Amino acid sequence: MKKEIGLKEGRLEFPAFPVVLVTVGENIIAIGLVHVLSFTPLKIGIGVHPRRYSHKLLEEIKDFGVNIPKKELVEKVNICGTVSGRDVDKFKETGLTKMKPKIIKSVLIEECPVNLECNKVEKLSFESSHDWFVGEVVAVHKEEDYDREKALSYWNKEYRVMGDLVMKR
Amino acid sequence: MKKEIGLKEGRLEFPAFPVVLVTVGENIIAIGLVHVLSFTPLKIGIGVHPRRYSHKLLEEIKDFGVNIPKKELVEKVNICGTVSGRDVDKFKETGLTKMKPKIIKSVLIEECPVNLECNKVEKLSFESSHDWFVGEVVAVHKEEDYDREKALSYWNKEYRVMGDLVMKR
Repeated sequence: MKKEIGLKEGRLEFPAFPVVLVTVGENIIAIGLVHVLSFTPLKIGIGVHPRRYSHKLLEEIKDFGVNIPKKELVEKVNICGTVSGRDVDKFKETGLTKMKPKIIKSVLIEECPVNLECNKVEKLSFESSHDWFVGEVVAVHKEEDYDREKALSYWNKEYRVMGDLVMKR
Repeated sequence: MKKEIGLKEGRLEFPAFPVVLVTVGENIIAIGLVHVLSFTPLKIGIGVHPRRYSHKLLEEIKDFGVNIPKKELVEKVNICGTVSGRDVDKFKETGLTKMKPKIIKSVLIEECPVNLECNKVEKLSFESSHDWFVGEVVAVHKEEDYDREKALSYWNKEYRVMGDLVMKR
């Protein structure tokens, strides 16, 4: 039996989305609104609310890193999504390690098994609560023994890992 | 030990994203590029390659439905992502049932436990392989006993269900 529900409730009815740690300059922000926007060229979008400190940084800085965390980092991811870079140095606060990028200037995060270096190419605003910053990927680094099963997803206040395979295409 | 990998490989290093069935008019398309773009107002974006039949429909039709499938529908979802609406009636092909929307004109899918009715408000192109169509959600329907654990995700040729809870925020 179906019934109509409110839009506020409806927005949370998705399963989990990947959660990433975005580095801008030397700050870290936990981002739940992230997706591959295009395959050719490879572009990634991140949605950021204008009241967040990183929004200001993303306006000013020309690149950012998309760092994919694993489940062992969940507490640190949560700190990055809770405190503001206005008040604290999140690398110090979490104990995460800065990793030198190859092309961009924003630092990367050593403990994240995958790091994508992005040059900011566009900002999308469409009369909405979030702006989307678009980055073109220019380099990717990966741990040789990276296990995607441990990758973290997040939605509606829950951090999850990947679930069971239902079908291979 | 980290090493640099190619962009083509790098694009697949995310965990799974939600997969949805988008209805446009009376056609169905399986979409892996979907995200909530904004909470206020609630807007959803879907990424569609210009060579897909639904791209043409999305240019012409003023609304679309976002239907969230459950794992029992995986074969039907896969059909919708494999055949083209140019050649077949996907409702007939899959045996899925048309559900009457409340506000929009595109039909919804009865078997999907959640249906979001969207008015198309924008198309985003940014010199990329995919265009994104933005819909503002105007109504949401949900099965009363919907179990989010059964929701389907997809990425890199694998259909998955939600994984274990790692931490509640």
